[in-house]
Amino acid sequence: MAESNPLPLVLLTEQFAKLPGIGMKSAQRIAYHVMEMNADEAKALADAVMNVHKTVHLCKYCQNYTDRHVCPICDDNRRDHSLVCVVQSPQDITAIERTNEYKGVYHVLHGLISPLNGISPDDLKIKELLARINAGGIDEIIMATNPTVDGDATAYYISKLLKPLGVKVTRLAFGLPIGGQLEYADEITLYKALENRNEI
Amino acid sequence: MAESNPLPLVLLTEQFAKLPGIGMKSAQRIAYHVMEMNADEAKALADAVMNVHKTVHLCKYCQNYTDRHVCPICDDNRRDHSLVCVVQSPQDITAIERTNEYKGVYHVLHGLISPLNGISPDDLKIKELLARINAGGIDEIIMATNPTVDGDATAYYISKLLKPLGVKVTRLAFGLPIGGQLEYADEITLYKALENRNEI
Repeated sequence: MAESNPLPLVLLTEQFAKLPGIGMKSAQRIAYHVMEMNADEAKALADAVMNVHKTVHLCKYCQNYTDRHVCPICDDNRRDHSLVCVVQSPQDITAIERTNEYKGVYHVLHGLISPLNGISPDDLKIKELLARINAGGIDEIIMATNPTVDGDATAYYISKLLKPLGVKVTRLAFGLPIGGQLEYADEITLYKALENRNEI
Repeated sequence: MAESNPLPLVLLTEQFAKLPGIGMKSAQRIAYHVMEMNADEAKALADAVMNVHKTVHLCKYCQNYTDRHVCPICDDNRRDHSLVCVVQSPQDITAIERTNEYKGVYHVLHGLISPLNGISPDDLKIKELLARINAGGIDEIIMATNPTVDGDATAYYISKLLKPLGVKVTRLAFGLPIGGQLEYADEITLYKALENRNEI
């Protein structure tokens, strides 16, 4: 921002520009918008930022964010606690919950193994997953990491760790997305769709 | 967001979704990012939001945002205070200052006249502009509102108000953008470029 802008506005712009998906131009637009808010609206935004830090922590079982002792999913007795879906991030739980089909519970890794980015297995919530399995009562682990290099590698690494514990480890199916068109499918997706074909 | 998300995170997402250019999906991504910040980073963001409200106000002359009594541009004696560029918003000042060519001062309207959106001349900083002109020392007013229906109407409205005061009122030139191509220019821009042609 130009020198003509007051320092507090420049500082606010810099704060917004640090957030994911917001460039300098958007950050400046948002900072001006905050400037135009009334004091109550600005306080509500600032309070929401501080509040999320004070009250939200990780669920002691699944490592998802929660403001309770145990998250509502782990606390739900109608769900199948013997089936655990392992995901990269809390956002993935929101996506899977939207299907309204999955009745098991979750485990959030909070990242993927990525040697290039310096993320090792110790940085993820893998030991917490092993502790849950060792505590007993789990029959199947569904590896639901993304179908990317890091996602596949993490799924493979964890499955190797879990197999000796006598637990069944499965992976999400990969193939054509519903509503997609063969013509626009990439080669690897199409190959996976052929390889994993089912009898009808 | 699904019910599986803790309330403070949902509230923070809603706060971000109110900001310009941020949809629910981006807001959720940003809320998770804030969750992953450490406490100092979150406090810096919240403080920047509150601080901008406490310390930034309108310059008593040009109505631009400033944290001083008079903004640095109005306070600069090397600038030509007889030349006032009238703009819609503070962002426009940043854009014009980037040219490094304009040496006059500014006046921010904080909006455009827009009957459809219920914005009348009284909602803009027009009386502050009239007061500056009546105080004397101003020779020319450059109307630098956007070349849109509302921008043109506002420029025309203000020029009608100012002409009886004996001040020269000009409008930004419209034509082909530099680096643009005739082939891709819209009809109105091309028409303006033809109409405003200059001898070489």
